Amino acid sequence: MFIMMKFIERLNYAWDMNNSLVCVWLDPNIEKFPTHIKQLPNSIFEFNKAIIDATHDLVCAYKPQIAYYAWYGAEDQLKMTLDYIKVNYPEIPVILDAKRNDIWSTAEMYAKEVFERYWFDAVTVNPYMWTDTIEPFYRWKDRWTIVLCRTSNPNSWDFQNLMIDGEELYKKVARFANDKWNQNNNILLVVGATYPKEMKELRELASGMCFLVPGVGAQGGDVEMVVKNGCTVDGKGLIINSWRAIIYASSWDDFMDVARMETIKLRDQINQFR
Amino acid sequence: MFIMMKFIERLNYAWDMNNSLVCVWLDPNIEKFPTHIKQLPNSIFEFNKAIIDATHDLVCAYKPQIAYYAWYGAEDQLKMTLDYIKVNYPEIPVILDAKRNDIWSTAEMYAKEVFERYWFDAVTVNPYMWTDTIEPFYRWKDRWTIVLCRTSNPNSWDFQNLMIDGEELYKKVARFANDKWNQNNNILLVVGATYPKEMKELRELASGMCFLVPGVGAQGGDVEMVVKNGCTVDGKGLIINSWRAIIYASSWDDFMDVARMETIKLRDQINQFR
Repeated sequence: MFIMMKFIERLNYAWDMNNSLVCVWLDPNIEKFPTHIKQLPNSIFEFNKAIIDATHDLVCAYKPQIAYYAWYGAEDQLKMTLDYIKVNYPEIPVILDAKRNDIWSTAEMYAKEVFERYWFDAVTVNPYMWTDTIEPFYRWKDRWTIVLCRTSNPNSWDFQNLMIDGEELYKKVARFANDKWNQNNNILLVVGATYPKEMKELRELASGMCFLVPGVGAQGGDVEMVVKNGCTVDGKGLIINSWRAIIYASSWDDFMDVARMETIKLRDQINQFR
Repeated sequence: MFIMMKFIERLNYAWDMNNSLVCVWLDPNIEKFPTHIKQLPNSIFEFNKAIIDATHDLVCAYKPQIAYYAWYGAEDQLKMTLDYIKVNYPEIPVILDAKRNDIWSTAEMYAKEVFERYWFDAVTVNPYMWTDTIEPFYRWKDRWTIVLCRTSNPNSWDFQNLMIDGEELYKKVARFANDKWNQNNNILLVVGATYPKEMKELRELASGMCFLVPGVGAQGGDVEMVVKNGCTVDGKGLIINSWRAIIYASSWDDFMDVARMETIKLRDQINQFR
């Protein structure tokens, strides 16, 4: 059933079902795992599985960052994690954060990696090389392509806010994404929680687009500002990344309970402003 | 010995030793392999090994593109390929083309993937998220960070040539890379062969920097223009990617000989204009 739904239908379903805009990161750091998990053969998968079981009714999406698996050489456990969600919680979309970008023929291989090798619902891409390097992703009409627009990191300002014909660079990206790349209605934008003014302007510029929002919590983004400036008129339109601390809030036997409590806290904080 | 050399010394050694500016891509496409290779257990590694053995005295670098390995789930064969070069031809630098970019903590994981999991000499990175996402790479002082500047693909024009304060965007990147990120003298730029005017201007702007040059051949880049506009005053300063056709020029038993002949052809074409 879920595999047949268009992306916005699936997102709406996940948003409504769990009454949540929270996306939980799955970025394994074995050093921070509880000792009894650390000792298991597929410790990354076991840790992810525990976090997923503890939070699946509180989130609208999961988002593994591929660097954390690549460093460990744990591509197999990334696949196991994805498969676990697909089998047990097929209603929850899974985003691969990979920030891919390359010439057409290579981008096609990246798209096949993400959408066929792993069968993710969505992937983040970098717009620096422009249309012919993004299209190999968004032509997969039943998957979602999430374009970096205004990222959450401190130095992004120095580049993404450069002025071009009286308009900031990141708005050029948003305008192009909205007007040209979104013909299949499967483009989302990355908009950092740390730049609330920019988020407000982007919401005006792309009123119907969904934003993936990193930077709440540790990076300093304010939940109230994100929700007030970023939500669409129906109080949705955002996939808000949990702070990484949620999954590492405890490194003891109670880590699942603590992760669940932290996720509820973030969900409720968000919902109080929707 | 080679592991101790600084990057520019190593490049100079490779450039001089083989009298060559050619970098051979190692982008496996199993469908195009000769039948007898296709049937081997580690066919990607076996193919690469054959190409490397046939060209090692004709090149200044090798460059695998990670998407081709990731799609096949062949990370192990990427590692085998790198190890094969390190053991047998340690004088030849190996570049991982991965175009990475992410926030600091994630970029650190990517850097560890490239420089520790695999032990590559260099990696390509995307500048869209700016300094604090590039620094986790270039702080590895004994490795090289190759920043996308003016890429070879057709639509790059629409973004990278946008005007900012009377100057094209890609020049902002080059200026920043040259002035700020190159403190350890380990930054290179990607400059496409398909934009000769831009290459000339970039050589003036960054007179001592090394450029990695894709786009010769199939993508339309002209060898004479590349060499005349891109070389440093000593007739070096460029790592010119072979067209992908070199490794797939024959899919018969003679593929090693043909790959060797094609590489000689490109090397000599380049050298005639140096």
